[in-house]
Amino acid sequence: MRLSQLFVKTLREDPADAETASHKLLLRAGLIAPLTSGVYSILPLGWRAVRKIEGIIREEMDAAGGQELLMPALQPAEVWEASGRREAFGDTLFHFTDRRGRELVLGATHEEVVTLLARQFVTSYRDLPLMLYQIRTKFRDELRPRGGLVRVREFDMKDLYSFDIDPAGLDVSYQKMYRAYINIFDRCGVPALPVEADSGAIGGKDSHEFIFLSDSGEDLIVHCSSCDYAANQERASSVKPAQESSGAPLPLEAVDTPGAATIEEVSRFLDVPKTQTLKAVFYAIDGEVTLVTVRGDLEVNEVKLKNLTKATELRLATDGEVQKAGLVAGAASPVGLKGIKVVADESITQGVNFVVGANRPETHLRNANYPRDFAVDVLADIANAEAGHGCPRCGERLLAERGIEVGHVFKLGTGIAESLGASYVDQDGQQRPIVMGSYGIGVGRLLAAAVEANHDEKGIVWPRSIAPFQAHLVVLGADRSADVAQEADRVYQELQGAGLEVLYDDRDESPGVKFNDADLLGMPVRLTVSPRNMKQGAVEVKGRSETEATLVPAAEVVAAVRG
Amino acid sequence: MRLSQLFVKTLREDPADAETASHKLLLRAGLIAPLTSGVYSILPLGWRAVRKIEGIIREEMDAAGGQELLMPALQPAEVWEASGRREAFGDTLFHFTDRRGRELVLGATHEEVVTLLARQFVTSYRDLPLMLYQIRTKFRDELRPRGGLVRVREFDMKDLYSFDIDPAGLDVSYQKMYRAYINIFDRCGVPALPVEADSGAIGGKDSHEFIFLSDSGEDLIVHCSSCDYAANQERASSVKPAQESSGAPLPLEAVDTPGAATIEEVSRFLDVPKTQTLKAVFYAIDGEVTLVTVRGDLEVNEVKLKNLTKATELRLATDGEVQKAGLVAGAASPVGLKGIKVVADESITQGVNFVVGANRPETHLRNANYPRDFAVDVLADIANAEAGHGCPRCGERLLAERGIEVGHVFKLGTGIAESLGASYVDQDGQQRPIVMGSYGIGVGRLLAAAVEANHDEKGIVWPRSIAPFQAHLVVLGADRSADVAQEADRVYQELQGAGLEVLYDDRDESPGVKFNDADLLGMPVRLTVSPRNMKQGAVEVKGRSETEATLVPAAEVVAAVRG
Repeated sequence: MRLSQLFVKTLREDPADAETASHKLLLRAGLIAPLTSGVYSILPLGWRAVRKIEGIIREEMDAAGGQELLMPALQPAEVWEASGRREAFGDTLFHFTDRRGRELVLGATHEEVVTLLARQFVTSYRDLPLMLYQIRTKFRDELRPRGGLVRVREFDMKDLYSFDIDPAGLDVSYQKMYRAYINIFDRCGVPALPVEADSGAIGGKDSHEFIFLSDSGEDLIVHCSSCDYAANQERASSVKPAQESSGAPLPLEAVDTPGAATIEEVSRFLDVPKTQTLKAVFYAIDGEVTLVTVRGDLEVNEVKLKNLTKATELRLATDGEVQKAGLVAGAASPVGLKGIKVVADESITQGVNFVVGANRPETHLRNANYPRDFAVDVLADIANAEAGHGCPRCGERLLAERGIEVGHVFKLGTGIAESLGASYVDQDGQQRPIVMGSYGIGVGRLLAAAVEANHDEKGIVWPRSIAPFQAHLVVLGADRSADVAQEADRVYQELQGAGLEVLYDDRDESPGVKFNDADLLGMPVRLTVSPRNMKQGAVEVKGRSETEATLVPAAEVVAAVRG
Repeated sequence: MRLSQLFVKTLREDPADAETASHKLLLRAGLIAPLTSGVYSILPLGWRAVRKIEGIIREEMDAAGGQELLMPALQPAEVWEASGRREAFGDTLFHFTDRRGRELVLGATHEEVVTLLARQFVTSYRDLPLMLYQIRTKFRDELRPRGGLVRVREFDMKDLYSFDIDPAGLDVSYQKMYRAYINIFDRCGVPALPVEADSGAIGGKDSHEFIFLSDSGEDLIVHCSSCDYAANQERASSVKPAQESSGAPLPLEAVDTPGAATIEEVSRFLDVPKTQTLKAVFYAIDGEVTLVTVRGDLEVNEVKLKNLTKATELRLATDGEVQKAGLVAGAASPVGLKGIKVVADESITQGVNFVVGANRPETHLRNANYPRDFAVDVLADIANAEAGHGCPRCGERLLAERGIEVGHVFKLGTGIAESLGASYVDQDGQQRPIVMGSYGIGVGRLLAAAVEANHDEKGIVWPRSIAPFQAHLVVLGADRSADVAQEADRVYQELQGAGLEVLYDDRDESPGVKFNDADLLGMPVRLTVSPRNMKQGAVEVKGRSETEATLVPAAEVVAAVRG
């Protein structure tokens, strides 16, 4: 492809609203163009990379036994109601009525449709195991699209669904996908860490995310400095730090705490460590105002809280709701509290003599002890695991890093199959629900992660496997010498004849502009034909990740590009 | 692929609601499965054929200079308003508001989005010509989905857009696409006839449809029995038959016509040929009741009428509207009519002494002559060309046949570029609007047409180029002989090792079931391994379109499949 004809315009400067490296580079190198919030066109150069990523995904899915198909984006709302996921997805699901007044949604994912196919075509245990997948546009009305292709409202996703006769079969399918995912990310040049994950609105039990660790990611990953424990903070557990002071329970004692409302302030005012305080946070859980309490050094984990309470909608209570419930902001606690549901983290049992709110303005209590001084409705792990906590597996120190989720695998179990009536007849003639798994990779997000993982200050450094072109041919001085132009054309033809994909910068631009663009666009090998190189019968060859160029005899350029 | 593992269930009987051959066969062979009205999943076997069709399309688009990209399905409604096409597409455009209350539409086509890309990236004449294309799902809320994949509400379409500096450049691009389309349909085994077409809601001037002639099609194609004139009836013109009787204009004369309201009845009652009557049809054109008149032997062409009147909404007037306008159904005509707009076909000038309605119940007039006896507001070609009419080019007899539109090419001109501000700077430094073309192929519809064009009473007869598999290997008697099973496995491995795609019927079914399925699924070559064939060291080979099978030495099966 001649660069003069390629539909691309590179940008010298970072676009104003782009924050992450991949977002900046995808825009600057002309790989994507925004249309509206969270909606992008993938331009020809970007699309070439996407097609290579898709090719790798297809190879790995096929090798694992997946069969490719294509399911519709337009889906009757009623099937999402039948599966019970309509509410779980909420406003994330685009929905509308068609010209006949029938309600449709845009597929955010395809568990429902694929389960209906299984209901239609799977009858016997002999039809299982089965793996079906597609690469198709998904639609999600995300609240906060961000990071270029990282969180968007329309994106191509590879989603595979496994169908098995029993949980043991699901384990086998899950392991096949787990390994295929490792291969895919590896082949795309994205080091991905498998971490335990929450299953969210998809539903199901076991689940792993594949995370590319990066400061630009929006997920926080907690992992052990010693063993291989790693989990999304949404789900991670930890051994909480011990309370600094300890001792025998003392009697409750009220103290005035004028001007001290936050844990920080109370802790300083009374000179007690945060680990010896209890924090109170007010949530509206499906509309019911609830007091949630954790030890003062910890934070409430809303995902754990939502899963625990099986809530559809969970948010912080408004000031109005707090007031109406008679709660005293800045001095609330379960001690002596009446008529309010209390959910507590296990950490309230890890320590003695806590400072807690007195449920009276500017007043706290010393020496609160559970269960001596107060009751709770639910006691469970609802606190964030954090860097510095102990590993739940080996006890060593946990670390926390941000990351981008590039893949997600779920054990769905039989939930959706039961809701939608997808069953098979087993060897004994019994009807049984099909045991399902669901496995997704966001193709655009993987492209973004690949750029995030493979760039330097000058631009993208494409891994060979997904580079839009394998070589970037630059001609210098062609405007002053027909011989040079001819030699560059010859090299271009020769490389193409050898089946190599070449981007040929035949533009009438300065060496500086051409080399900067070559670095920005980031093809693995740069070749330069110039009057000086020609005199030596050579072509200059430079790997994108190398600092030094070498002269290669003109006859050996094909081999040089192949590496 | 082993058939025992393929996600397919063939049907022995035609599904009840399927009418056309392709619809029946696509369902019976397990290539597609409906989800809701006009919305289908493409199952693995169908998807393999689609991917081959897409491969052929990509090769031809790339060879013609197209650059592939991917544009969004989610599009802000405002860009469709800016282009003026929102209204033209009307209810066909799915639309909804997102969670922030912003109105979005689902891309029915991508002229707007691609023009915005051109506005962003094309600045100079040096950036042109340019061809951009994608293969992406389109959404159209069709009033009457039908024929399986022929008219659906969600479908993958290849759409290419050309950008040129002037109409001469557009002609070149248009011709390139025209030729590429001929190649594509040819390679997919679909004989397609290029016909002149109306541009409909897409807009623009010249336009051709590529039609596969088939009784199951919903388009009516008028073409000459002698020259190469061919046009969609929506647009076709013709030389109308001469009036049987002729003579000098006679005086107007009222006659009672009790019980005669239709042209048929009036013609019989008064014993005049239909060519000597004028028909009156009442339309509501953007709400205005209009009398449309054509010679009695002709039909009103609503597409011509809509284009002529530049109407957004055109429909037959309701009884209420007719009554309110004071029109006399069954006896209306422009003669003596007041306050009603009249649109007339040129055919009212082709003849004398017409019988027309008297605008009084059960009364007609003899010897009406235009313009002696009545005026019209517009006089133009608004009648259907029909079989038996004269060719507008050579005068010979026209034929009419039904057909399926598999592709459509449009010269858009500068309309959309002007609405959306996509311009370039020419060699003289002048800003000029980009001259555009638009070229579409419905991939699923092409699949349906390929099946329509390539089947017999037993099933599909795939062209090699798009067959899901190249060979269908049947093993017989494997349950009784391990040797046979082993030999079939060996042949399967050998063919696959040679890079051939093989569907291997390893099921424990009778020869009848297996051969019927092989015929239904329709791969180009069927191979049979059986105890009898093995004794002769041979494999039976039968082309799907051949009636006789031949025995081929086991060592030569690869060559036999390659043909």
